[in-house]
Amino acid sequence: MTDSHEKQNVGEDIVTPWEVESASEKGVDYDKLINNFGSKRIDEALLERIAKVTKKPVHHMLRRGIFFSHRDLETILDLHEKKQPFFLYTGRGPSSEAMHMGHLIPFIFTKWLQDTFDVPLVIQMTDDEKFLWKDMTIDEANRLAHENAKDIIACGFDMDKTFIFSDVEYISQSAEFYKNICRIQKLVTFNQAKGIFGFTDSDSIGKISFPAIQAAPSFSSSFPQIFGDKTNIPCLIPCAIDQDPYFRMTRDAAPRLNYIKPALIHSTFFPALQGAQSKMSASDPTSSIFLTDSDDEIKTKINKYAYSGGGATEEEHRAKGGNCEVDVSYQYLTFFLEDDQRLKELEKGYTEGTILTGELKRELTKVLQKIVGDHRTRRAAVTDEVVNQYMMSRKLKFDY
Amino acid sequence: MTDSHEKQNVGEDIVTPWEVESASEKGVDYDKLINNFGSKRIDEALLERIAKVTKKPVHHMLRRGIFFSHRDLETILDLHEKKQPFFLYTGRGPSSEAMHMGHLIPFIFTKWLQDTFDVPLVIQMTDDEKFLWKDMTIDEANRLAHENAKDIIACGFDMDKTFIFSDVEYISQSAEFYKNICRIQKLVTFNQAKGIFGFTDSDSIGKISFPAIQAAPSFSSSFPQIFGDKTNIPCLIPCAIDQDPYFRMTRDAAPRLNYIKPALIHSTFFPALQGAQSKMSASDPTSSIFLTDSDDEIKTKINKYAYSGGGATEEEHRAKGGNCEVDVSYQYLTFFLEDDQRLKELEKGYTEGTILTGELKRELTKVLQKIVGDHRTRRAAVTDEVVNQYMMSRKLKFDY
Repeated sequence: MTDSHEKQNVGEDIVTPWEVESASEKGVDYDKLINNFGSKRIDEALLERIAKVTKKPVHHMLRRGIFFSHRDLETILDLHEKKQPFFLYTGRGPSSEAMHMGHLIPFIFTKWLQDTFDVPLVIQMTDDEKFLWKDMTIDEANRLAHENAKDIIACGFDMDKTFIFSDVEYISQSAEFYKNICRIQKLVTFNQAKGIFGFTDSDSIGKISFPAIQAAPSFSSSFPQIFGDKTNIPCLIPCAIDQDPYFRMTRDAAPRLNYIKPALIHSTFFPALQGAQSKMSASDPTSSIFLTDSDDEIKTKINKYAYSGGGATEEEHRAKGGNCEVDVSYQYLTFFLEDDQRLKELEKGYTEGTILTGELKRELTKVLQKIVGDHRTRRAAVTDEVVNQYMMSRKLKFDY
Repeated sequence: MTDSHEKQNVGEDIVTPWEVESASEKGVDYDKLINNFGSKRIDEALLERIAKVTKKPVHHMLRRGIFFSHRDLETILDLHEKKQPFFLYTGRGPSSEAMHMGHLIPFIFTKWLQDTFDVPLVIQMTDDEKFLWKDMTIDEANRLAHENAKDIIACGFDMDKTFIFSDVEYISQSAEFYKNICRIQKLVTFNQAKGIFGFTDSDSIGKISFPAIQAAPSFSSSFPQIFGDKTNIPCLIPCAIDQDPYFRMTRDAAPRLNYIKPALIHSTFFPALQGAQSKMSASDPTSSIFLTDSDDEIKTKINKYAYSGGGATEEEHRAKGGNCEVDVSYQYLTFFLEDDQRLKELEKGYTEGTILTGELKRELTKVLQKIVGDHRTRRAAVTDEVVNQYMMSRKLKFDY
């Protein structure tokens, strides 16, 4: 059986790279999604194995089930134990100037992976994709790729081991990347692309062929300048699970090209301030906390918009308790409050009704003001020159 | 009305970029084809205009109706009269090492156009296309692009004004070329590509998106290194008429990109030795005269395989005469014997039965031995170094 041909709609949830919609206020049913996509749940045994192999505690996004699903992660751990190389690949579609906290999640986690495993990382900025999908010029999409790169760099990636590239720029620099794109495009029929991505006959031929461009960086031969004479280095891709269709397609293609299937580690979705059923949108500033928000804006947005799982009145809340599963402030804290002890207290108190929504909101405000503030400082130090250094095609430090 | 959405099958003829098949021994019905494609016949008045504008006799392939159809050729002549610039664009799919006489026709004619109008020329080697369509590695297709470039260079193009490029190489050198490819891919739906090229759902996404790659060199902004700060220079494309679907698509896209529609000049098809109903195939050495054939091979092939329009016996031939319309030796002479007077004599004598098939074959043998022999000598002088010079992305001489 191949990975690719499952349906994309899980119950009433819709999960594609371009659309995530849940019918439930708890958000997407991830058990159904795993079952449907054919990936594996990251269970306790695997978490213990990660801790053992890396000789350090697992990241809070792992232990809290935010990165919850995977493909072939065991293989990557096996390699690392044997001191054999792999590389990380993640990416971003630069659709807008302003990035929000949700966009930061894969990068925060990827930074942890890079630090923990000490491996090279390639980050794809799909400016061509955003041009194809949005009402935007290709030069504007390329400009946004550079702007967003600043936020990514501000996450602290090791410059010696990180290559950030725009598709438009790197395709026009690397014959090997373009050759891999062609190789993948030769293997995938329109029928298959339709089955995996839901394309229709009215979609542009650009959209239809794009998935090969997101697939190609999974193969180390797309980066001869990085890996030198090392060929076919395995790849681990951290991403939100809506990106999985691209890599199911990639994993189908890999053995036909004598390439290694990329391994994956998937995150859940970050909810909108208004709750898991709402959409976060870069064009709606009230739908999330943005990396450009001031301390006051963060406070106001959380107070005004963060969906509460508490009782209708203080009296009712103290009597019946609140619902952490749907409370956005609590959910956001699971992503960003690293202190397990404190999170536990908040959960217990809120559920029992001794802690009110206001206290959760104050806690979240403090946490996000700190993260966004630190990010603001680091981003201000990222000049165009620094961006150019990260985005220059070059050899990376790669010791094995 | 747009150019694109005509049917591809004319009566019982099939004409697509990948298949040309005629139901008649006279070959494709070109009047029907012009009508169907929506191009224009090159008439006497236009030939006179060309002679007047260029101040020299028109090429024999024009006056004999081998280049017989066009789009917007008048516009190009208007420009030239006003001393305004245009450029030439043609190409080749490098599917095999050996090129035959049919492959030479667009290049012989394009050389005449370059000499006559003194304009820059870009020649696309679609190695990516051949990889996508054939059972061939991409590196082999790229190698063949360089091999075939030697034959093209041997046609005598002015190095100062000619850029030959492989798609695989040039896409990975020029962001502007790739951006134009993306821009075109964004405008063309699968439905439209299906209508123009006959793609099906079982075709690879590489094939489906390829037409944009053949379209993009029609726009001068794909070559900033050639045209410098001159933008939107008009383009004239000499090609066999089976390539017209690509450029109908291109002409539909052009105004939506604020680009100038490319003009076209179309040739008829060069028949196989066995007649207009047979297919010429690079894998069947008996189907045509190849540029690598020795004098003896040329003689033997013509004697053995060239389809005769003569009578069944000498007696019958002398009584009823031969049929030049289906006689391959005569047809080949129309392409390659420049002497109008001699061609007229041969036609008259053959039609009346005073000239036998043997004499036509001897004449053709002489003509082709000379052309192939001269080509052989010139090609032997084309080193890899010379190929690299033609294929280096660079400024061309472009005086206006």
